[in-house]
Amino acid sequence: MSVQRLKRVLVGRPIPTSLDQHERLSRVTGLAVFASDALSSVAYATEAILLVLVAAGTAALGASLPIALAIAILVGIVVTSFRQSILAYPKGGGAYVVTRENLGRYPSLVAGAALLIDYVLTVAVSTAAGIDAITSAIPPLYPHRVVLCTAGVVAIAIANLRGIREAGRLFAGPTYLFVGSYLAMIGWGLVQWLGGEVGPAVEASGAAPRGIEALTLFLALRAFASGCAALTGIEAVSDGVPAFRTPEAQHARQVLAVLGLILIVLFVGVTFLVYVFRVVPVAGETTNSQLARLVFGQSPLYYLVQGVTALILVLAANTSFADFPRVASFLARDGFVPRQFGNRGDRLAYSNGILILTVLSVSLLVVFHGDTHALIPLYAVGVFLSFTLKQASMVRYWLRRRQPGWVSGVSVQAVGAMATGLVMVIIAVTKFTHGAWIVVVLIPTLVVAFVTVRQHYDQVARQLSIDGAEVEPPLRAHIVLVLVGDVHRGVLRAIRYARALSEDARGVYVEITPEHTRRVEERWGRFGGGMPLVVLRSPYRSVAGPLLEYLDHLQRQTADQFVTIILPEFIPARWWQHLLHNQTALLIKGALLFRKGVIVTNVPYHLDQ
Amino acid sequence: MSVQRLKRVLVGRPIPTSLDQHERLSRVTGLAVFASDALSSVAYATEAILLVLVAAGTAALGASLPIALAIAILVGIVVTSFRQSILAYPKGGGAYVVTRENLGRYPSLVAGAALLIDYVLTVAVSTAAGIDAITSAIPPLYPHRVVLCTAGVVAIAIANLRGIREAGRLFAGPTYLFVGSYLAMIGWGLVQWLGGEVGPAVEASGAAPRGIEALTLFLALRAFASGCAALTGIEAVSDGVPAFRTPEAQHARQVLAVLGLILIVLFVGVTFLVYVFRVVPVAGETTNSQLARLVFGQSPLYYLVQGVTALILVLAANTSFADFPRVASFLARDGFVPRQFGNRGDRLAYSNGILILTVLSVSLLVVFHGDTHALIPLYAVGVFLSFTLKQASMVRYWLRRRQPGWVSGVSVQAVGAMATGLVMVIIAVTKFTHGAWIVVVLIPTLVVAFVTVRQHYDQVARQLSIDGAEVEPPLRAHIVLVLVGDVHRGVLRAIRYARALSEDARGVYVEITPEHTRRVEERWGRFGGGMPLVVLRSPYRSVAGPLLEYLDHLQRQTADQFVTIILPEFIPARWWQHLLHNQTALLIKGALLFRKGVIVTNVPYHLDQ
Repeated sequence: MSVQRLKRVLVGRPIPTSLDQHERLSRVTGLAVFASDALSSVAYATEAILLVLVAAGTAALGASLPIALAIAILVGIVVTSFRQSILAYPKGGGAYVVTRENLGRYPSLVAGAALLIDYVLTVAVSTAAGIDAITSAIPPLYPHRVVLCTAGVVAIAIANLRGIREAGRLFAGPTYLFVGSYLAMIGWGLVQWLGGEVGPAVEASGAAPRGIEALTLFLALRAFASGCAALTGIEAVSDGVPAFRTPEAQHARQVLAVLGLILIVLFVGVTFLVYVFRVVPVAGETTNSQLARLVFGQSPLYYLVQGVTALILVLAANTSFADFPRVASFLARDGFVPRQFGNRGDRLAYSNGILILTVLSVSLLVVFHGDTHALIPLYAVGVFLSFTLKQASMVRYWLRRRQPGWVSGVSVQAVGAMATGLVMVIIAVTKFTHGAWIVVVLIPTLVVAFVTVRQHYDQVARQLSIDGAEVEPPLRAHIVLVLVGDVHRGVLRAIRYARALSEDARGVYVEITPEHTRRVEERWGRFGGGMPLVVLRSPYRSVAGPLLEYLDHLQRQTADQFVTIILPEFIPARWWQHLLHNQTALLIKGALLFRKGVIVTNVPYHLDQ
Repeated sequence: MSVQRLKRVLVGRPIPTSLDQHERLSRVTGLAVFASDALSSVAYATEAILLVLVAAGTAALGASLPIALAIAILVGIVVTSFRQSILAYPKGGGAYVVTRENLGRYPSLVAGAALLIDYVLTVAVSTAAGIDAITSAIPPLYPHRVVLCTAGVVAIAIANLRGIREAGRLFAGPTYLFVGSYLAMIGWGLVQWLGGEVGPAVEASGAAPRGIEALTLFLALRAFASGCAALTGIEAVSDGVPAFRTPEAQHARQVLAVLGLILIVLFVGVTFLVYVFRVVPVAGETTNSQLARLVFGQSPLYYLVQGVTALILVLAANTSFADFPRVASFLARDGFVPRQFGNRGDRLAYSNGILILTVLSVSLLVVFHGDTHALIPLYAVGVFLSFTLKQASMVRYWLRRRQPGWVSGVSVQAVGAMATGLVMVIIAVTKFTHGAWIVVVLIPTLVVAFVTVRQHYDQVARQLSIDGAEVEPPLRAHIVLVLVGDVHRGVLRAIRYARALSEDARGVYVEITPEHTRRVEERWGRFGGGMPLVVLRSPYRSVAGPLLEYLDHLQRQTADQFVTIILPEFIPARWWQHLLHNQTALLIKGALLFRKGVIVTNVPYHLDQ
């Protein structure tokens, strides 16, 4: 029972179903809860752009500014379309649900696959970037990245298995600290730039890298594709409308607008300062960390920026621990993934979803050595695919309904769908060989798996359906066989039980060593209570073989009957003692598992020592 | 069933018990069968001595000659005492059996532990040395030693699981080829030496190692201890007397004398030539291989010597695959190791013993990187311990009986016991820090384990004994509960079965989602055949908790009853489909396993697709 106790310590006491209520969020806490995922990408999106451009030399880094502006416009388009979709789905609608309702099964499965993959990547990328923020500030930790990432994910997983209460208050502090400290950094940085106080970092270090390729359109598009990681997580508000206080839709729309604005300010601000301060990406320290040190020096403010960056990234990873199990439970309810993902654990959390998310994201972190920028090419394909599907669904929604405002609805969503669809193609093409291919292969694979699982459940339901069934008549015959290897106290109990089950009970002994037979027969005569004993010969020392033949014989004699095979079994007092006994019972159960009309019952006899 | 088919391909068809007969051996084949283990040690014993002496420089290698003579005398003593013990045990007596009969339980368990350890080491050392012989001749294979060793052990294990027939003929060829080729090498080497034709190897290579320690008595004793590996396997003839044609004892004694003579000639001959040809141990080539190349050049004869050396070592490893399972089966019959070691498999072999020997010896080879001389310090302690115990037993045997010849019996065995006991102490002390400590710790540990297992079996037998038992009266009450989560076709079958078992059958439904209850109650009303349905509430979503409470309630009401819990279960058609269904039934079985008076029965419903 020590496993149970360990579970209690880690996970806590069970929580009754009746406590399953939602706390409603004000706009201020709502922004904090839903913004962490979207805003946290500011921590790595700029560097993702620079890491591509730097291949064309430091001179090419200037391209980061128009790219950042393009991404800012994209944020505007997506926020507009999602604000509009809140009007249609005031009760909240994620890409899976909205797509299923408007475009049907297969597109919704594509959206579901894209979302699941995304959530795994959100955990991996956010954790890796959070650890980057820490190792930038404390370089000796840098070689231990993978261990730190794993520990981080496991800690978040345990918190989620416990079921996080008071989530709003937990999120509010770090999110506003992050926004505040980044705004302070950007503001103070701009003041320094205007005053010309900061010398260019690159000249000082003398490490200006030369380009190894030209700044082609393809390279610029790839940089843009990498930067689009900034948009991940922006869908959270429109998925979670019901969490707001009334009027929910209106509050959610206001929060989403503010979120979009903050995201644009932070992302463009950081990218601009990184450019004018000539920060160049290096191994071992993030560009944001370099920027923060240039602005604040090696002061407590620098460490504050790094600390809250790590914290908001942890919170971003944490949101996936709510989202992945929820989407998986939707898919489970519709029969596309194993039903176990629809089960709630002791603490009302979807434990199986949390566990598999942990395993998958830790595996990714280990395979990719906890390297944020190795993971980013896999990341945004799924996000933009789900955006595109949701917006296309909304086009269909407005076209079908033609309620007041449908024209603006269709146009906003169509522009959105085209923009995000185009970006998805750009990402998939420019990042294909860098890892995006994995996701391109994985999504259809998952869809096929979903469909296969659903077909299985449909078949099971059809076969188990009681439509047209009738109350079955009583059995005509019920033969009970007590299988014995020797006559001991456990067998006496089994004999007693067999006599309670049926008039037609028999002992069966499979003779392996003939010398032993007489003893068994003699003892059976004394303790069998008049029950006949059938002795089966076994030239090959197998118990199952002769037993199966005897069953064939019995089942040929009478149709419509059950045969119950009773296996007397003694249960040792300690677990290791099981190893000291033949597992014949288990083998026989295995041999009879697929045999129709046969029921195998263990009658246990518990030993004390 | 593919596991079954794989087993058939590897292991072959089952063999009936009636074919279990012994083929009797002539003296010529008997020598071949029983000599391989003892003679094969010539392949590594000389090198084992030199590897110790070389620490004191090449000048110290001359000490190998007196050491070899001391070992030859020891061979004489042991052979004499074992020939004498055949007179007392004409039906064969291994150390375990002889010690148990004469010295009692605990000494015999020590002997048993020593033997089991020995057999594992015989497999490991012989395989490693056999692979050494091959890699000496084909150096590119040297880096793949561990893989080759593993493959070798696995191949021998499979052959033994098949049950080796025609063993005599299989052994005769390689054993006589080995003896013949080694005699030829020694003879031709002596001729060359007398003619002064062979230049000293060491001067030629210019790699004369300087000593790093002085040739102390301790070092000489350690070299002697290492060389005593030559005696391993010499007990085989006296253990296997009944395998000879009549008169068994006389034939066995003759064969043992010849074996001792050959062993002395080969071992002393090789050691002498290795000395006079100034062969120095090097990594990557055995000293015997160096010697063979000096004598025969890089000729086919050289490759023949290496080939038959490898072959006889494989046969030596193979003998342990007969001995280990046999000793384990003796211990199992006496209840000191799990009974499974007493089971014969499909092919009349003691499969479990063979499997565990394979796992242990492969583990040793992996841990010790397939290095023969790293394993040798572990080797001889157990061998000499079992020799000592057997000879001490024989002293007791003759003292008790005082038959004609008892005086010579006592003296021969007492000399033998003192000699081998002294050697055992020398080995344990001089090799202690080199690995012998492992065996010194392991033997008492194993003895404690044997005793613990035996105590458990004794307790089980006492608790299961039918002494004083009486035929039990019919049950007073038998309640049957059908546990349902929904009403489907599988449940209909379970209901029918429950009605056949008892008048007092009830359905039990644990309510987890209250909305579901009405549907279950309605369907139960239609298909329950009048059986009552009990609904249990579960605020914590656990099925086992409310069920256990209900059982408490039932069992408090009536003493002397059984409660049968029927779990309707559908069996998917394919194994992977099991993953798609909740394993609630398994959890419930686990929760009820230790509950007295409760019997859990699965009623299967087989799906077709």
